[in-house]
Amino acid sequence: MNQTSQIDWIAVDWGTTNLRVWLMSAANEVLAQHQSPKGMGSLTKDQFEPALLHLIEQDLDPGKKTDVVVCGMAGSRQGWAEAPYLTAPCPPPSVHQATSVSGTDPRLSVYLLPGVKQTSPEDVMRGEETQIAGMLSDTPSYDGMVCLPGTHTKWASVGHGEIRSFQTFMTGELFSLLAHKSVLRHGIETGELDLEEFRHALRQIAKEPSALAAELFRIRAKGLIADLSPTKAFSRLSGLLIGAELAAIGHSAETTSSIVILGEDSVAQAYKVGLEALGLSSTCISAGTATLRGLILAHASLKEAAQ
Amino acid sequence: MNQTSQIDWIAVDWGTTNLRVWLMSAANEVLAQHQSPKGMGSLTKDQFEPALLHLIEQDLDPGKKTDVVVCGMAGSRQGWAEAPYLTAPCPPPSVHQATSVSGTDPRLSVYLLPGVKQTSPEDVMRGEETQIAGMLSDTPSYDGMVCLPGTHTKWASVGHGEIRSFQTFMTGELFSLLAHKSVLRHGIETGELDLEEFRHALRQIAKEPSALAAELFRIRAKGLIADLSPTKAFSRLSGLLIGAELAAIGHSAETTSSIVILGEDSVAQAYKVGLEALGLSSTCISAGTATLRGLILAHASLKEAAQ
Repeated sequence: MNQTSQIDWIAVDWGTTNLRVWLMSAANEVLAQHQSPKGMGSLTKDQFEPALLHLIEQDLDPGKKTDVVVCGMAGSRQGWAEAPYLTAPCPPPSVHQATSVSGTDPRLSVYLLPGVKQTSPEDVMRGEETQIAGMLSDTPSYDGMVCLPGTHTKWASVGHGEIRSFQTFMTGELFSLLAHKSVLRHGIETGELDLEEFRHALRQIAKEPSALAAELFRIRAKGLIADLSPTKAFSRLSGLLIGAELAAIGHSAETTSSIVILGEDSVAQAYKVGLEALGLSSTCISAGTATLRGLILAHASLKEAAQ
Repeated sequence: MNQTSQIDWIAVDWGTTNLRVWLMSAANEVLAQHQSPKGMGSLTKDQFEPALLHLIEQDLDPGKKTDVVVCGMAGSRQGWAEAPYLTAPCPPPSVHQATSVSGTDPRLSVYLLPGVKQTSPEDVMRGEETQIAGMLSDTPSYDGMVCLPGTHTKWASVGHGEIRSFQTFMTGELFSLLAHKSVLRHGIETGELDLEEFRHALRQIAKEPSALAAELFRIRAKGLIADLSPTKAFSRLSGLLIGAELAAIGHSAETTSSIVILGEDSVAQAYKVGLEALGLSSTCISAGTATLRGLILAHASLKEAAQ
């Protein structure tokens, strides 16, 4: 592929485990898309530019500087360069608040978007703010909660175009550690949820969240002495972890108003089913396009400023 | 060492990660002690006997059969042979309830002590019942809770010489996974507890246990934006996990009466400090000798029966 004549700018979502790149036209059409496992977690400071160039070099116009707008962990202290956090409450960051990376290849002009922090209670996000910006570009007057399921699931309270406050749960990482690295791994088979088991465990822990560490071991005990199947064990584990999270979120009165889940995969679906089991309705929308839309928005503000 | 003339029987504590062996005289003096990392978790069925013989063969009397009394995971389904569980409420098992391993070396007569299960709610223990037996041999009329800190901490309600009921918490394994394998590992240094931080986190989560997964991530956030030190991060993690467990245990009215902690190491001390922070007093006693005492008791019942 050679699209150099048309490439106007480059959008990048650079997380801990993945690097995703979109080559964009001036009309914000996606001309090509690349992905690599070279996430922030596997790179030292001087490996970011080569990792990016490896994906885009063939398509770069040597005669001009191309804007590269990056969100995610590449802007963390351990990343390419540190893009200091904005502080919530705040609107999602625009490119004017981005950190320009100096000393890059002359064909590139790289902007690292900042993450958002909250000082009390302490919390941080990097990348999710761009997804929220993307979502708000469709529904600018949205007022309610946004759930962003993932390794570290975020719940953001959003309104008047701002991220008012947010809270991060280690639910996804806990699931992964428990299902694959703990004693529970002997009796767990991940796959499709047994919804009845999932709902039962979820409601149970939402009623008594302090029982979590005991109910986790009970999955093992049920496998040993009550023939709990590996699929049910997986469903119980999901139900307990998501249930404990929803119990905490349920304390926030706002959740009764409006909940958007940014995601449509099986994990996002599990959150939706779990919320329903607790009597809360929600809507799943695509997270994949939200990030790109957020990056497009950030780049648009750069173009406006240049005019 | 050659103690064969005096060795009367052999006591074995065979856990998931360790194998501990005591060579015993007829008067129940410890003649020698051996330890190896060949726990149940690293062995297949046919590797148990060689692992044991490797430690004791030089000391065996070829002219007689020596009794070997084993507690712990060697009696599990994945162990040397399955020693079916007793069902609580029950006294700790005696050797008459043990499973004899058939087809062993002619110099050995191996007894695997059963573990204890509970059917509602489901729970299991293997090895702790022998520690409880050892403790009860000193204080037969004890009535109250026994806490056995470990990878999977057990809380047993004990009275009239019986294990009435018990509950297992994955607290130790959660700590280990979070401190060493999760995103928190970047900002954690295990070592001595910062007691103020530990108590603060413990009281906080005991008040609102559902916040656990959020407070876990907050350790990371505090490290990034509020300069939480690695030692304080370690202390917070301990406080959150033990605090959530104690919140669950606190629901049981019995805890207000009497609590014995079987252990004297830093983890046992942390439980003691944690209980104090919640207004509950407890006593730490040595766990190391409790296991051996429990095995001696089991072996004594074997000798009585033979007379």
